Amino acid sequence: MKVLITTVPFATEDRLPLDLLEREKIEYVINPLNKKLTESELLSLNDNYDVIIAGTEPITDKVINSFKNLKFISRVGIGLDSVDLISCRRKGILVSYTPDAPSKAVAELTVSLSISLLRKVQLSNLRMHNGHWNRYYGKRLSECIVGIIGVGRIGSQLIQNLSGFGCKKILLNDLNPSSDIDRQHKNIYWTSKEAIYRESDVITLHVPLTKKTHNLINLKEIKTMKKDVVLINTSRGGIINESDLINALSNNLISGAAIDVFEEEPYFGPLCNIENCILTSHMGSMSFDCRTKMEIEATEEAIRFCKSQALKSAVPNEEYIIQEEF
Amino acid sequence: MKVLITTVPFATEDRLPLDLLEREKIEYVINPLNKKLTESELLSLNDNYDVIIAGTEPITDKVINSFKNLKFISRVGIGLDSVDLISCRRKGILVSYTPDAPSKAVAELTVSLSISLLRKVQLSNLRMHNGHWNRYYGKRLSECIVGIIGVGRIGSQLIQNLSGFGCKKILLNDLNPSSDIDRQHKNIYWTSKEAIYRESDVITLHVPLTKKTHNLINLKEIKTMKKDVVLINTSRGGIINESDLINALSNNLISGAAIDVFEEEPYFGPLCNIENCILTSHMGSMSFDCRTKMEIEATEEAIRFCKSQALKSAVPNEEYIIQEEF
Repeated sequence: MKVLITTVPFATEDRLPLDLLEREKIEYVINPLNKKLTESELLSLNDNYDVIIAGTEPITDKVINSFKNLKFISRVGIGLDSVDLISCRRKGILVSYTPDAPSKAVAELTVSLSISLLRKVQLSNLRMHNGHWNRYYGKRLSECIVGIIGVGRIGSQLIQNLSGFGCKKILLNDLNPSSDIDRQHKNIYWTSKEAIYRESDVITLHVPLTKKTHNLINLKEIKTMKKDVVLINTSRGGIINESDLINALSNNLISGAAIDVFEEEPYFGPLCNIENCILTSHMGSMSFDCRTKMEIEATEEAIRFCKSQALKSAVPNEEYIIQEEF
Repeated sequence: MKVLITTVPFATEDRLPLDLLEREKIEYVINPLNKKLTESELLSLNDNYDVIIAGTEPITDKVINSFKNLKFISRVGIGLDSVDLISCRRKGILVSYTPDAPSKAVAELTVSLSISLLRKVQLSNLRMHNGHWNRYYGKRLSECIVGIIGVGRIGSQLIQNLSGFGCKKILLNDLNPSSDIDRQHKNIYWTSKEAIYRESDVITLHVPLTKKTHNLINLKEIKTMKKDVVLINTSRGGIINESDLINALSNNLISGAAIDVFEEEPYFGPLCNIENCILTSHMGSMSFDCRTKMEIEATEEAIRFCKSQALKSAVPNEEYIIQEEF
């Protein structure tokens, strides 16, 4: 069995995943380009791999067809938008993921980005590093209505992290609202996306990228928001329409945004020129512990596959249905 | 009665404080230089004011002597390091402050700065705005030992805000440890400053500036800290020795720092050239609600004084004792 590890960085902070592969004498290659691969870069790679330990690069039908020996994809992370599950199923290629590991790191980052945007920390930091002293006013979370779109593992963890702030209100929207959450916490309400857009001071997205969530937030939706709203996307690029976001930020239709994920990564586009947009390089899950956990879990799953053992976190059928539906 | 308002900005977000003064027909002047005043600037101002609604400018013995009619100082905020209380008492000048209003805004900002430093948000943001894509690893609060030096109003509020994160441990130090706090929360322990320096991943200061806390943290203390510690100062400039901090950051003795307060403000010094130092312009209390509350409370207190009514938040005797002691 020969394993291709496409996600980078990999095992740089904790070598354990590589040790595990070596202990089992499994041959592996780490992404030689040391960047997120494009479809054509994937196509150009040697094709005799049995297993891919994958990041978020596009494992399309074309890529799947080109990897003649491919039998198993172990995703380091939770999102499956990058993998053509239907094509995998057709070819008998199994897919697993690490759905729990990233949640805590993404949720913490989201809290920080929210307060930074509300208090204009990044603007003051930038100004001071350029020799200017400006005291900005801002809002506190406890004065704010926080809208969370997508209340799965990450959204729920975010609610937990916010519990010590006493937000004015937390508005939730999800395809499958869980009745537990609003019973456990105070001032939490399930509502429509439209109400979240209209009423929130902070809007944060924690949905997967599907055909249904692609361009979920366009200029039309942004125009229904408060003029001093801050928008956070730590989920997937393309859920907020990027050119509409640039338009909104440039024309002060919203107060600020924090964007960790992009339609095309690495991102070097026009958001880089917009000061009131905090940009991070898809770092939501990049805490030492979460990232290491993801890498170890994905590697262990790859080893299980290589040794013909039962998988522990094969992608469930719902995920295939989501891709089939759209 | 004639009032000088030295703190700026003042009543820019909510005009109510000025309305209150006008309603009472109290004559006022707002700081004509629109910046934090130095001692010599204060000395050069017209001296016939009865009341100062004060920021953090140095109201020294010399300044107090030069304001011949001065009878009352109403501080917008909690810190009293800027006011020579002993000189005030000698001249029969009363002093009040707004000790509760800033706490929530400072505590929230501190949480955001902690996570931003731990996850290198400011570095990634800077890099992306300069066209570079680097994915940084970081720590999560819940993996961290957080050390809080000074557990008064702000420190206690910070503990409350952190309660939803499940920090590994919170270490506390204060001159007057309250036995309630560690009973109310899990994983919270009172300890020495030395143990906090040695064990913490995040160290944040919430003490007043007194002769005892001036240069509390020097290179000597920094050298006892973990090499990947992050340091946060949202209390007062001068508690961390600035040149030692620059030394520590430049030589990677610590991972990063977030500094909101400076020995001299506005600050344009060498920290402005250090990337792994988040800088904000004394914005701890600058949330709309906290700042407005502080301005209204301080103005109402000034009005009470002008109308010979009882004061509501005269500075308590302990504060005079602290200044006398050193």
